[in-house]
Amino acid sequence: MTRASAGEPGDDDGGSVVYDLDPDCTAEDIERNTPYLAAINGIVDYGVFVDLSESVSGLVHESVLEGTYRVGDELVVELESVRDNGDMAFEPADVDDYTLESVSHDYSLTGTNRLEANVGDQIHLEGKVVQVKQTGGPTIFHVTDEHGVVPCAAFEEAGVRAYPTIEIDDVVRVTGTPEYREDSVQVEVDGLSKLEDEEADDARKRIEEALDSRAQPHDVEPLIDWPAFEKLRPDLREVATLLRRTVLEGRPIRVRHHADGDGMCAAVPVQIALERFIADVHEDENAPRHLIKRLPAKAPFYEMEDATRDLNFALEDREKHGQQLPLLLMLDNGSTAEDVPAYETLAHYDIPIAVVDHHHPDPDAVEHLLDAHVNPYLHDEDYRITTGMCCVELARMIYPDLTDELRHIPAVAGLSDRSKANAMDDYLELAAEEGYDEQRLQDLSEALDYAAFWLRYNSGDKLIQDLLQIDGSDEQHHRELVSFFADRGRAEVDDQLDAAMSHVEHEDLDNGAHLYRIDVENYAHRFTYPAPGKTTGEIHDRKIEETGDPVITVGYGPDFAVLRSDGVRLDIPQMVSELEAEVPGGGVSGGGHLVVGSIKFVKGKREEVIDALVEKMEDAEIDEALSSAAPIDD
Amino acid sequence: MTRASAGEPGDDDGGSVVYDLDPDCTAEDIERNTPYLAAINGIVDYGVFVDLSESVSGLVHESVLEGTYRVGDELVVELESVRDNGDMAFEPADVDDYTLESVSHDYSLTGTNRLEANVGDQIHLEGKVVQVKQTGGPTIFHVTDEHGVVPCAAFEEAGVRAYPTIEIDDVVRVTGTPEYREDSVQVEVDGLSKLEDEEADDARKRIEEALDSRAQPHDVEPLIDWPAFEKLRPDLREVATLLRRTVLEGRPIRVRHHADGDGMCAAVPVQIALERFIADVHEDENAPRHLIKRLPAKAPFYEMEDATRDLNFALEDREKHGQQLPLLLMLDNGSTAEDVPAYETLAHYDIPIAVVDHHHPDPDAVEHLLDAHVNPYLHDEDYRITTGMCCVELARMIYPDLTDELRHIPAVAGLSDRSKANAMDDYLELAAEEGYDEQRLQDLSEALDYAAFWLRYNSGDKLIQDLLQIDGSDEQHHRELVSFFADRGRAEVDDQLDAAMSHVEHEDLDNGAHLYRIDVENYAHRFTYPAPGKTTGEIHDRKIEETGDPVITVGYGPDFAVLRSDGVRLDIPQMVSELEAEVPGGGVSGGGHLVVGSIKFVKGKREEVIDALVEKMEDAEIDEALSSAAPIDD
Amino acid sequence: MTRASAGEPGDDDGGSVVYDLDPDCTAEDIERNTPYLAAINGIVDYGVFVDLSESVSGLVHESVLEGTYRVGDELVVELESVRDNGDMAFEPADVDDYTLESVSHDYSLTGTNRLEANVGDQIHLEGKVVQVKQTGGPTIFHVTDEHGVVPCAAFEEAGVRAYPTIEIDDVVRVTGTPEYREDSVQVEVDGLSKLEDEEADDARKRIEEALDSRAQPHDVEPLIDWPAFEKLRPDLREVATLLRRTVLEGRPIRVRHHADGDGMCAAVPVQIALERFIADVHEDENAPRHLIKRLPAKAPFYEMEDATRDLNFALEDREKHGQQLPLLLMLDNGSTAEDVPAYETLAHYDIPIAVVDHHHPDPDAVEHLLDAHVNPYLHDEDYRITTGMCCVELARMIYPDLTDELRHIPAVAGLSDRSKANAMDDYLELAAEEGYDEQRLQDLSEALDYAAFWLRYNSGDKLIQDLLQIDGSDEQHHRELVSFFADRGRAEVDDQLDAAMSHVEHEDLDNGAHLYRIDVENYAHRFTYPAPGKTTGEIHDRKIEETGDPVITVGYGPDFAVLRSDGVRLDIPQMVSELEAEVPGGGVSGGGHLVVGSIKFVKGKREEVIDALVEKMEDAEIDEALSSAAPIDD
Repeated sequence: MTRASAGEPGDDDGGSVVYDLDPDCTAEDIERNTPYLAAINGIVDYGVFVDLSESVSGLVHESVLEGTYRVGDELVVELESVRDNGDMAFEPADVDDYTLESVSHDYSLTGTNRLEANVGDQIHLEGKVVQVKQTGGPTIFHVTDEHGVVPCAAFEEAGVRAYPTIEIDDVVRVTGTPEYREDSVQVEVDGLSKLEDEEADDARKRIEEALDSRAQPHDVEPLIDWPAFEKLRPDLREVATLLRRTVLEGRPIRVRHHADGDGMCAAVPVQIALERFIADVHEDENAPRHLIKRLPAKAPFYEMEDATRDLNFALEDREKHGQQLPLLLMLDNGSTAEDVPAYETLAHYDIPIAVVDHHHPDPDAVEHLLDAHVNPYLHDEDYRITTGMCCVELARMIYPDLTDELRHIPAVAGLSDRSKANAMDDYLELAAEEGYDEQRLQDLSEALDYAAFWLRYNSGDKLIQDLLQIDGSDEQHHRELVSFFADRGRAEVDDQLDAAMSHVEHEDLDNGAHLYRIDVENYAHRFTYPAPGKTTGEIHDRKIEETGDPVITVGYGPDFAVLRSDGVRLDIPQMVSELEAEVPGGGVSGGGHLVVGSIKFVKGKREEVIDALVEKMEDAEIDEALSSAAPIDD
Repeated sequence: MTRASAGEPGDDDGGSVVYDLDPDCTAEDIERNTPYLAAINGIVDYGVFVDLSESVSGLVHESVLEGTYRVGDELVVELESVRDNGDMAFEPADVDDYTLESVSHDYSLTGTNRLEANVGDQIHLEGKVVQVKQTGGPTIFHVTDEHGVVPCAAFEEAGVRAYPTIEIDDVVRVTGTPEYREDSVQVEVDGLSKLEDEEADDARKRIEEALDSRAQPHDVEPLIDWPAFEKLRPDLREVATLLRRTVLEGRPIRVRHHADGDGMCAAVPVQIALERFIADVHEDENAPRHLIKRLPAKAPFYEMEDATRDLNFALEDREKHGQQLPLLLMLDNGSTAEDVPAYETLAHYDIPIAVVDHHHPDPDAVEHLLDAHVNPYLHDEDYRITTGMCCVELARMIYPDLTDELRHIPAVAGLSDRSKANAMDDYLELAAEEGYDEQRLQDLSEALDYAAFWLRYNSGDKLIQDLLQIDGSDEQHHRELVSFFADRGRAEVDDQLDAAMSHVEHEDLDNGAHLYRIDVENYAHRFTYPAPGKTTGEIHDRKIEETGDPVITVGYGPDFAVLRSDGVRLDIPQMVSELEAEVPGGGVSGGGHLVVGSIKFVKGKREEVIDALVEKMEDAEIDEALSSAAPIDD
Repeated sequence: MTRASAGEPGDDDGGSVVYDLDPDCTAEDIERNTPYLAAINGIVDYGVFVDLSESVSGLVHESVLEGTYRVGDELVVELESVRDNGDMAFEPADVDDYTLESVSHDYSLTGTNRLEANVGDQIHLEGKVVQVKQTGGPTIFHVTDEHGVVPCAAFEEAGVRAYPTIEIDDVVRVTGTPEYREDSVQVEVDGLSKLEDEEADDARKRIEEALDSRAQPHDVEPLIDWPAFEKLRPDLREVATLLRRTVLEGRPIRVRHHADGDGMCAAVPVQIALERFIADVHEDENAPRHLIKRLPAKAPFYEMEDATRDLNFALEDREKHGQQLPLLLMLDNGSTAEDVPAYETLAHYDIPIAVVDHHHPDPDAVEHLLDAHVNPYLHDEDYRITTGMCCVELARMIYPDLTDELRHIPAVAGLSDRSKANAMDDYLELAAEEGYDEQRLQDLSEALDYAAFWLRYNSGDKLIQDLLQIDGSDEQHHRELVSFFADRGRAEVDDQLDAAMSHVEHEDLDNGAHLYRIDVENYAHRFTYPAPGKTTGEIHDRKIEETGDPVITVGYGPDFAVLRSDGVRLDIPQMVSELEAEVPGGGVSGGGHLVVGSIKFVKGKREEVIDALVEKMEDAEIDEALSSAAPIDD
């Protein structure tokens, strides 16, 4: 029973309190020895019948009555007895001067965690609406309370929106019956109302506090002891909290990730962690499929075309399925100024963005557009802490039970991006404990790269899981598959270099470095593996090994060039801005950092741009510590 | 009761008429004081039992009988009484010489407009079959009567075609019960028969007349007073009638439109008008989604690839969903000879085609392939009446309630295609009344262009509606979104021109005009916004402003050129045919009109083709009135 | 009743046999005059109650009992009588020395061929699990017995896997009730258990034998009398058996075929034959749609990208729908070393591969990767036996009722690939009997080519069936459609050659042959019909006709060349290996055979590669019998 004072509280009044039941009160709201206001609705020779609420009524026996009554008269009564069949008898209460207090029906709430135990029984629950899907039949309200999210089906008329005033984010009370439906346990709604005022505030506060608390990531022991990494942990916790909260809120998540080895090592663990967490939170067993989507991206930044497509799908899902707009999670991508136009497009809609990346960031450009941002450069660390390493920890914060499946992943991520982190030894050892020696890890890294290339815009969930041996893949099968893909990939790299190596042009720069140039349009196979970026990288690596000296490699096509340097400080963003000025009408743009980058220009100015570029390299400062092992994008 | 004379009408005969009930007649067909032919089917000591039809029988009491009877004897009877339980008593009728008239069961019909009021009761309806969908369970016949289209579910055996002789376009009588189904109100079929002969003719005539009448477009007041436009109105009414009729017939509609600002302003209002009209006509609430599809097209004509794809989808939908083949509606595209191969492909199937376009038409080539064609050039008007302007009126004819959402659209369409129509002032004023000043309209036009580019082959329904602020978009959100897209688009145009402008080659032609040439393959960024056509147009516009003189601009790539002229009469189709002859092996083709066009050729003959082209321009006649503001396609 | 001896068989023992009912035995397992072991479970004054199994019990009347009994005592009894209400009375059996034999419940099995007759009644069936699909509701086990495949729905809890230990390939006994479901007849499962040991072996053997027998292809009379073809028939029977067996096993089939005329003539008949066979075998009426997919391939070999995509889809279907991985059927493609990487990729998964091809094979490279391989070259025949000819016979072996729809197809296939087989006359005659004269067949061949080009990666099922006039297309419509597509195709070929012919370079080779070269990149339209391969072929054909001499034609683009020779022995694989060595850094690769082939190289080495190639041609041996009419791929 919930009692709310009507006007002044009775206690201060000196008189007694009489309770006035709300119309929806039931027998359960009646307590003994408590005076209630009743109305006479019938008079018989053995007494009068009184109503206390719409469904509570009973007899006051003539033996306890004094005086005469008319139908409609008010009477203050107390419960005398309840018969086996539920019939109630009341007797007049002895009160003179009293204050009325209204009594609302005691909706004792059943949490979404107890629905299965109550299948078939009417229950009440309070929660926040997170999705409103109009089907051809009922309207499905997805409601979260402190414990989880449940679909509540309300039927008005086929295809007609039930409770049309109820919207996403409203706090509601649902009365209904949990039932097994083809898809899941759902609540068949008998009544649904929006809570108002204090009641709403209380419920919302209670729910939000619960969600806040449940959104807290797990405290997981680091897989290895690595002080540099620990600097990123608070930021990762922030992302984990945001993602868990997003799941609890029923908001979809769209993951965009770099389509290479490190990107896969980053995205797949987070995807699986989120899928499992969604399955725990949502009664609807299709929720993992509906609420998370992983999409590889070929470009080293978030392209307008992808953003437009993502936005378009998001708006359609909102229209068709009443979903909230998604959160965008950018992995191994997304920290640079080139991402800004796409981010700004999404900023016109309620689409939060979180980024975990280890490419050289432009924090000034992107920070104000992001809801969370993890990047080692923001903590004076660098690409050597790869995104895959970060995301394994992130996945564990979200869903720690995954840990045993992920111990080998950071090593793969590190090898994929040729991380020279000191911690690599520890990661390799960790992987070795799981049966992954360095050759096998190296194979896995090559295999991921190769598979990602041929999958193109497909996420290839199952194939990639087989390669990564996450989520229950068979060991022997995994081994054979990895070897095969790795061997194929290496063979195709060899084919490519067979064609290309004899066309690599060499030049000794004034600063003592070697410059190698390769025309990848004319001297490498097009539209096949490896793509120009990787082809250039492979040439570069061979030349470093060959010479042992500082090396710069430029791979150029009709309107682009990719750059790699080991041992020479290039500062590519600086070069790009200079080239913009020096080559008018060159349409020069580009991105990168000290030793890795890519440049675009118009086809007709290629020679001029590349000549100007090489000239800058002549004077570039030698710094043998600099390594281009960081990822280069195709 | 429906009575049809058997042979000569009784009235002429002198004798009386006795009625002979058809086997399917029920008690409802019996009238008092009317003689019916009955057959004795049982004899008891208190009388005889007679059958009047399969379900009508009753007792003739021995007290009213004379003589003796045998089972099988015929007897003429009249209704004596009906008991509470429905039992009927008859008495012999006093007729000697009589003529028989058969009585068919009185199927009093329930229109599809009264189905909801009759949910749960058996009803009869007559209508024309417009779709026959075989599901894994029942067969769904979509039937239109005078009022609308309703799905009728007939179950023979799971996945087995019910009533296999019934096909699309048959006129049928359905006996069944309207029920709410997950998707809509549908009729559960108890019986379904094809009407024959006169009965079918009558029903078909009644339905066709009703559909004809309902297909009539609404008489809408023109948004502005514009005599030139009024010349097109009868043609637009014809298209509106055709489209409304198509909806009433349950035939799907496939809209192909030019993917630019004017094309969007044309297609989206018509799409929304049709969706709303479909929702009104069809009981099936998924009908709008199933019956209309809008598809942007990049090419300035209907490509064979698109036509093949459209045909393929249409044939599959017919196969899978028993749909009729669609009507094709071409908007801001479709009037030229280049569309003919695609049209001829579709002409082998029952696919009507309607076109609303304002590009220079080739009526001789296309007219015989089209079911309706609106184009200002057919009425001595020109591109200045844009397709968007036409289609706003078309949408209003189809669904006038849309009017308030569309007042600003014609101005956007006009600005998008740089219409110099005098009426632009009125349209701008109309838009201003809705809060759209010219800058905002200009922004909207740029934003549409930019969004269309990145959406590529996606219709992007919701995003475009947000930009156009149709169908309930939020004002503030709309404003911000438009500004952002417009600014981004302009910034990218600026980037493109930064690269391109210094490569524009200038030449003074003999006729005094300026010729500007730009190699868009080598001196503009490829595969990005703006595409070559728009890049050329932007350069052209800047040069006009710069010089104030007659200007021709040619943007060329490896195997194509786009042309724009202001102030010089080019007559591009003429030039193309001359080039075909003059440059053998040049593979020259192309399209356009006096001042706008595009030309294709083989890569290896580019120089020769362009030199020959320029030579023709030297001699071209100056006509300062000519403006290329008409849309140029990428 | 099924009796299995417990230990030594009774007959050898000298004593009598007493039967011991298994707990799940029912009254139906009881026979008269047979002694059963019973246990006393109750004693009353008029007798004792005995249990023979969990559900079989009855009274032994005191009148027939001797001695005293306690609850729990064993007693050997025989059936005395059964009352109308089912109550059984037993009497003691007179046995002294006996051997026990256990009796299992007699699950008299209902074959999947008799399910419709038993709708609503509980039945038992035994079969092998071929698919386990977890829906949001029940788990669907697709089970095959000797007669067909039926879905069996078992419900544990919404979305929860029922009988989680049961997997694909288990032999199970299902007790349940056949019911009509929206999709089909399916069995609602009451109980499902895995058979073990002998019982499983017996059932498996019975089922496998039945499937083996049903997998046998039909003996069809050859359409024409052609000894050369008969050499291939055993191999075709092997493929037919494999495919029929695949259908019986419920394994999906993915058909990849060359996207040209012969490829279509091969793939479509087999597709339709399999669809019809699947419909016969599977109760689920969606099975044909779910179990076969036809996909055209543009490349002349199985590309890694296609294989990766196919594998990805297969893994997803296994994950989502519990399907087995598919069988891959390669048609008019797949016999060469270039297919190996893709095959090796699939070899890591359980994906059988069958190939029917008539391109020059590399049996050493592919044979060990294939489960079946048909190719005329394996029997000293050649391309003249086209894949379409083979596959019409294959389709007939699978589903002979198709024969009447296919008589004209081999002629089309032969014309498409310009087969000079002697049997062509017979095929043409066969087609003529169906009303197809040579012109019409030629048209059909052109039309297929043209349609295949524009359909690109779409299978275009209905359109191609309309063109081929299979599966009930209308004759007149078919004729018009074919003419139109053929005419359009020819017109576009003419346009292409108009541009190209004047750029064809001629050279007299030392060996007396003509060499023609055409730069298809620069002197033919790109990205349109006909593609470079067909363009080259058309030029070649015209030149043969023009000259009557030996002719070689080379069509080259930036990084590829296609070759055709008539009358000169080129041996292209040999040339490719020589070029690889002679042009270092040329990245030369390629495939083909004596007179047809294609070569790839890096763009920058084009001139060098082609010069070296032509030099080889100078010395090539003239052999006027050699014809390049075999298919050339785009």
